[in-house]
Amino acid sequence: MTATPPPPPLATYPYIESGGSLLLAWQLRGKRVLIVGGGEVASKRLAKVLETDAYVTLVAPSEGLHPEVRYRIFSDPFTSKRITYHDRKFKFPDEPLSASTASEFNPNIGGGDLEGADMVLTAIDDVDISRSIYEHAHARKIPTNVADIPPSCDFYFGAQLRSGPLQVMVSTNGKGPKIASMVRDTIQEHVNSIVEPSGIGRIIEKVGVLRERLRERAPGVGGEVSEKRMKWMVDLCDTWTLKELGLLDERMMDKLLDQGWEKGRVPSFLAVGGLSGVSKDWKSRVGDRATLDRCIHLSAGIGIGATLGWVVLRYWDR
Amino acid sequence: MTATPPPPPLATYPYIESGGSLLLAWQLRGKRVLIVGGGEVASKRLAKVLETDAYVTLVAPSEGLHPEVRYRIFSDPFTSKRITYHDRKFKFPDEPLSASTASEFNPNIGGGDLEGADMVLTAIDDVDISRSIYEHAHARKIPTNVADIPPSCDFYFGAQLRSGPLQVMVSTNGKGPKIASMVRDTIQEHVNSIVEPSGIGRIIEKVGVLRERLRERAPGVGGEVSEKRMKWMVDLCDTWTLKELGLLDERMMDKLLDQGWEKGRVPSFLAVGGLSGVSKDWKSRVGDRATLDRCIHLSAGIGIGATLGWVVLRYWDR
Repeated sequence: MTATPPPPPLATYPYIESGGSLLLAWQLRGKRVLIVGGGEVASKRLAKVLETDAYVTLVAPSEGLHPEVRYRIFSDPFTSKRITYHDRKFKFPDEPLSASTASEFNPNIGGGDLEGADMVLTAIDDVDISRSIYEHAHARKIPTNVADIPPSCDFYFGAQLRSGPLQVMVSTNGKGPKIASMVRDTIQEHVNSIVEPSGIGRIIEKVGVLRERLRERAPGVGGEVSEKRMKWMVDLCDTWTLKELGLLDERMMDKLLDQGWEKGRVPSFLAVGGLSGVSKDWKSRVGDRATLDRCIHLSAGIGIGATLGWVVLRYWDR
Repeated sequence: MTATPPPPPLATYPYIESGGSLLLAWQLRGKRVLIVGGGEVASKRLAKVLETDAYVTLVAPSEGLHPEVRYRIFSDPFTSKRITYHDRKFKFPDEPLSASTASEFNPNIGGGDLEGADMVLTAIDDVDISRSIYEHAHARKIPTNVADIPPSCDFYFGAQLRSGPLQVMVSTNGKGPKIASMVRDTIQEHVNSIVEPSGIGRIIEKVGVLRERLRERAPGVGGEVSEKRMKWMVDLCDTWTLKELGLLDERMMDKLLDQGWEKGRVPSFLAVGGLSGVSKDWKSRVGDRATLDRCIHLSAGIGIGATLGWVVLRYWDR
């Protein structure tokens, strides 16, 4: 008899809240980004894009260029060679956009400034031209953001912060850009304070180096080895504090891999020679604002209380 | 004489740190996302995508489905109608991929499971198939993420948190996913604590409603009116605290627009009838952890000090 067993009852899972965006870290190294416009908003877009090691084509009449845009194009030795600048207005593709273009788009027809673009960001005042650029870019399936016109955007930007390899974005889904930047500022302060003195950037760099070394010892993509590596790294991060991770040095990494990875376990910070770090860690705890704050208030309280007690007993109790 | 004046000297601006990603809030409402795979990683991708109000096509043999994936497809009343499920392996496009395909791609040839997809997320164990799916999707200019194979990704995911309209993403640019989630957790705690009791989500909703009302009073896209609206909202956020913004009600919004926007100024929280809020605000300040912490330590200190002072004077000084 081969009776199929009944399917197990389905578990329930949390309710999914709708109305969100998909937050992504888009990769642009070596890609070409077209920026249309050269004013203040364009200057912010330009700085963000240059951080990603993309090549930029910027199209805007020179008389309206924001000073920072001019600096990045003509003077900044690190960015000027990555920017191709056209001193004119946007050049539309040769073919007019018809209702059927989106599905029958022919990539062999000249694309004007859209030719070869992997992403398009526009920040100009003319609403009609902005919308039209979006339609053309959309037909060519080029991801596009049109500043200030949400329906003509494949994606939005949020308030961002960066500390070396760490990047954080705060989005309010268009409901309050100013609040997003207020929240970003408080996160910035908080992130800086939790990991003094090394700084979160340095901690991430250290862990990145360790991961690279681990990959050299146990190479391979996907499957069992990749899973084992991931598990070991997660165990390490669960066992060590962020501060201890920030104190990792070459010698400790060697020990960690020899005595930890090879034996399938995670030694403690002390076990791999993290002794000298202990005092640093103690110092950094005192440096921690909340602890300092408590000490100050406790001491002040003791002072006030002692004075009060002394005064009361001296001049009143007698 | 018409001598052209020399161009003004260019200012310098901060050095741009390279190696970053472009963090984006991708818009997927009504779009179609293809998810290949049905395991644990796929279950996380699925939940993230469903938050964006996208339609999902999920392709994976049913025997390997993660319980949460099964629940979302077959039982969850809110998500099951948004998911089209195919109980099989991925179906490649009809045409083989040649070196020239990317530039001569013909959209009229059957695209297999890629047909009509606006985004592709794969989370399967087979590295070769994963890479091949990426090549095909890339030729069709469909944004794609292949789990665990960074070179086959147009974008990465980061650790995320959500509180109503607020979304935060933490990325370490692939250097430490575990650290990203540790930083996310500490940000979550921090964001919750700064805006008690209303919660950051409620504050953003309130400000969103106010922005909508302002847009009804002063409609128009782009140009002067949009700039004036933005400036007024920023002034408001600079003048009011986050907590005061969270206490906005219908009546206060009316007053704010009548006495503020119409007259080109920003009244204070008290001026628009925020009186009842003051005590709430006072309460929420005491509710604020740091302040409470200081009070406790100061009181404890006074207690200890008074006792010490009393004891010393009583039994020693005499």
